[in-house]
Amino acid sequence: MRIGIAARLDIHKAIELTDDLTDFLIKNSVEVFLDPALVKKLNKYHDSAREIQDMDVDIIIAIGGDGTILRTQSFIDGKNIPIFGINMGTVGFLTEIGPEESFHALKEVLNGNYFIEERTRLEVWHNKDLAPALNEVVLMTRKPAKMLHLEIRVDDEIVEELRADGLIIATPSGSTAYAMSAGGPIVDPRVNAFIIVPICPFKLGSRPTVVSGESIISVKLLREGKKAIAVIDGQVEEEINYMEEVIFKKSDQHAYFVRLTKEFYKKVREKLIKGGIGLE
Amino acid sequence: MRIGIAARLDIHKAIELTDDLTDFLIKNSVEVFLDPALVKKLNKYHDSAREIQDMDVDIIIAIGGDGTILRTQSFIDGKNIPIFGINMGTVGFLTEIGPEESFHALKEVLNGNYFIEERTRLEVWHNKDLAPALNEVVLMTRKPAKMLHLEIRVDDEIVEELRADGLIIATPSGSTAYAMSAGGPIVDPRVNAFIIVPICPFKLGSRPTVVSGESIISVKLLREGKKAIAVIDGQVEEEINYMEEVIFKKSDQHAYFVRLTKEFYKKVREKLIKGGIGLE
Amino acid sequence: MRIGIAARLDIHKAIELTDDLTDFLIKNSVEVFLDPALVKKLNKYHDSAREIQDMDVDIIIAIGGDGTILRTQSFIDGKNIPIFGINMGTVGFLTEIGPEESFHALKEVLNGNYFIEERTRLEVWHNKDLAPALNEVVLMTRKPAKMLHLEIRVDDEIVEELRADGLIIATPSGSTAYAMSAGGPIVDPRVNAFIIVPICPFKLGSRPTVVSGESIISVKLLREGKKAIAVIDGQVEEEINYMEEVIFKKSDQHAYFVRLTKEFYKKVREKLIKGGIGLE
Amino acid sequence: MRIGIAARLDIHKAIELTDDLTDFLIKNSVEVFLDPALVKKLNKYHDSAREIQDMDVDIIIAIGGDGTILRTQSFIDGKNIPIFGINMGTVGFLTEIGPEESFHALKEVLNGNYFIEERTRLEVWHNKDLAPALNEVVLMTRKPAKMLHLEIRVDDEIVEELRADGLIIATPSGSTAYAMSAGGPIVDPRVNAFIIVPICPFKLGSRPTVVSGESIISVKLLREGKKAIAVIDGQVEEEINYMEEVIFKKSDQHAYFVRLTKEFYKKVREKLIKGGIGLE
Repeated sequence: MRIGIAARLDIHKAIELTDDLTDFLIKNSVEVFLDPALVKKLNKYHDSAREIQDMDVDIIIAIGGDGTILRTQSFIDGKNIPIFGINMGTVGFLTEIGPEESFHALKEVLNGNYFIEERTRLEVWHNKDLAPALNEVVLMTRKPAKMLHLEIRVDDEIVEELRADGLIIATPSGSTAYAMSAGGPIVDPRVNAFIIVPICPFKLGSRPTVVSGESIISVKLLREGKKAIAVIDGQVEEEINYMEEVIFKKSDQHAYFVRLTKEFYKKVREKLIKGGIGLE
Repeated sequence: MRIGIAARLDIHKAIELTDDLTDFLIKNSVEVFLDPALVKKLNKYHDSAREIQDMDVDIIIAIGGDGTILRTQSFIDGKNIPIFGINMGTVGFLTEIGPEESFHALKEVLNGNYFIEERTRLEVWHNKDLAPALNEVVLMTRKPAKMLHLEIRVDDEIVEELRADGLIIATPSGSTAYAMSAGGPIVDPRVNAFIIVPICPFKLGSRPTVVSGESIISVKLLREGKKAIAVIDGQVEEEINYMEEVIFKKSDQHAYFVRLTKEFYKKVREKLIKGGIGLE
Repeated sequence: MRIGIAARLDIHKAIELTDDLTDFLIKNSVEVFLDPALVKKLNKYHDSAREIQDMDVDIIIAIGGDGTILRTQSFIDGKNIPIFGINMGTVGFLTEIGPEESFHALKEVLNGNYFIEERTRLEVWHNKDLAPALNEVVLMTRKPAKMLHLEIRVDDEIVEELRADGLIIATPSGSTAYAMSAGGPIVDPRVNAFIIVPICPFKLGSRPTVVSGESIISVKLLREGKKAIAVIDGQVEEEINYMEEVIFKKSDQHAYFVRLTKEFYKKVREKLIKGGIGLE
Repeated sequence: MRIGIAARLDIHKAIELTDDLTDFLIKNSVEVFLDPALVKKLNKYHDSAREIQDMDVDIIIAIGGDGTILRTQSFIDGKNIPIFGINMGTVGFLTEIGPEESFHALKEVLNGNYFIEERTRLEVWHNKDLAPALNEVVLMTRKPAKMLHLEIRVDDEIVEELRADGLIIATPSGSTAYAMSAGGPIVDPRVNAFIIVPICPFKLGSRPTVVSGESIISVKLLREGKKAIAVIDGQVEEEINYMEEVIFKKSDQHAYFVRLTKEFYKKVREKLIKGGIGLE
């Protein structure tokens, strides 16, 4: 088996865990490849250095939070390599397990006791194809607390014209991330749909809308003189000008995750109700 | 062409419109069948009387509100006859047009300028199969303002255990009806999904959940000594006892509607934001 | 010191705790009075039996949940006796402490280390003055899942005309009870205000409204042929007919609670976010 | 009578109306003072030019939207001059009337048929006193779609620790502005309270909170390395650093408005449900 490893570089424990896991995997006859930045930090495994985008592996282990997963995913677009996420962050919705369970879990993986979960991604077009989103695309103003004036269409029918701080177009994966914060429903990843959630709409009667995964969603910026940005998965930013459209549809590319269990709702309860933050 | 007519009997204008439409249809060489109750009210068209469940027609015109549609649908289960709804009620989400446009619209229908929209229904099982729902099933206590204690499972995974006044399991059609009132998202009828919406949950962190149309949803009544009722489309009531389960999945039966346009979102804006009620 | 005790009769542990507390209080030279129903259950302390409405005491201990508090309060209307609530129920927002802390807490009370919190109550008028509410008045239909058509006025200005399953008029105390379930804001008990929260309004743009504690709120039942009930604090029911009004304003009577700490928000976090129900 | 006029300079009709109103007022023997920028635009009334902050008048007419009102108010802090707002903007919650009614309304005012409404303002302290807010203070990150980690206290009790895009502390006046967009309740201006509304909280169980107008609210920025800004009434920006606190309480200064009617709820219905935006 061939396994790659990527990790958050700013968390000491993530680096340490990388060391231990690499050691463990090599002892178990796995061919391991490490992000060169990790090799440099560890000053070990120099022969295993390999850029993430060049990793030709069966699985990539991503150690960090959801941001690490989203970033790792962006490097392996179009390659169908499943990601195994180990949570060192505060949220960890896309990750599979915590660090303390990681050795036991990897043993299960090496024994073949896992399955691959396929997650839908969102194709984003603005003058050209942009990086597909795994969680969501957020349209906002550059200036905090200023409103956009937007027109939303689904399959060429006007859904709504609204003034709001911003707009989220999310996949089911993204329904437990930013879209949830803005008041969207929890959407099971098995639903073939996208979610449209306004951020702070200036109107009493605005509601989240769930549209078909086969629909084409387009959003046009109406108010003259205001620029917006589209933020893809919290990573990539693209500037949108007055009267320009951004178009969304299901991507041909999916994201793949190594899973040991299918407990979606347990995660929802644990991470979003009880948790997320220390105090509560 | 063969067309049946059902109408609300308690609205004088619905009876009048039935008269005018029957006259119009006969003049246009349509074979018309009327609900015997309408024939009796009109004291005309005695030869056209036919029980709704025995109507073997191409289209049934239902004159009234959404309740009339839901009631008419319950008579023609399993027959795949499309319904053409003329709105005489306060809501009219399932209806296609208002009374003033009905003659023009029927001309279009007679000329074949329409399409059939298929809507998903929800199979409901409690000890036996109950009538499938077009909009939603509501679980509530018999006593107003008392809470139920429920366990919700999706494909055998526990989603949530909650105390609430009730619970709505809705189809996308139902997303603009009771589920909307309880805070659920608008769901495009083309999405293959069901919506689970708690009514007045006694917890800050409860959210509507959208689950796959291929999932099996089961709800169990946990609190001893309390009885619940399941109300199907606001029409049929079924009593649920302690520790009993109600199971929901997509029905093999669909509902069919005669449509002249595809403007789902226009209806949402007109009926739920602007309207519904006289004053506002 | 003179202390009365009321308790839920259907919870064995509440009866047991009554026994232990009575014993403890007598040993501490307190003159104790017990609800005769408790005396009968315990078959002890026969000389201490006293109807709750006849208790002329410094403090009444209420052992149970919020329902017990609300019921006890209804017996001592107009007497200004502070209640010390010991939580044996599932919610316990109005109660002060759990059973395990009750002896320690009572020692503090006997030593004078407590303060009296005054809570606003809501005067309810319908043809005549009804019992004032501590938490809320709920207007609903008798039949589950049927809508009311209501007109709401504040100081004679129309606030809204709406169709909904019901309407809640709550005090700040009630903001963490039923009004919270229906989507209302948390209102600090120190705010001089009432909260109007529709239950399942059939309209996208309905919002909870916070009105001044000095305002007069009136609600009129508009739809002919439908009856509603007003439920006061989940206890008292009053039938409302078509075109009748229910009028609400601040009561001259308050409720008084024995408090050891002032931690309102800690209770909100503990009882409504983490808790309430076993599983989560 | 002495009346000052301020207006939006970028709307042609606001300038025109200024001309007509000035003419009308002079004919009615009112002493009129104009913002020098208006005098320059009109190239008339040169003798009436007076900086807004130097206007010693009975009433200031502000022609524009709520932004114009908020800006005008900031120039006359501490002076208790009532503002008469004429709405040329899209929202106009603080304004009193539309341009078409302005001559009739001003006649009423000149005849003394008006009253002065006093609105509460929010004192904001961060290292020093900042400009008091009439509507709200928004705490946000400078970077769009990034979260803050905040601790909120009321009268020194921790209310909540939360991660969110931002936080709004609003007056009742602000309850129909930004706080409403973020999901807050409508609060009648007569309620002595402030509203705390998180913007996109990353937690399922977050709710708007209404606290007493006598309370002291403090918000601390917890997450290292992130800067926030406080935006006061959408006008003034102040930078907040890690571990710094912003403290809010009722200001000694109020805002005063010239009103012809007391119809608060009519405005809510008209501006927030029906309207605000052209299309709907």
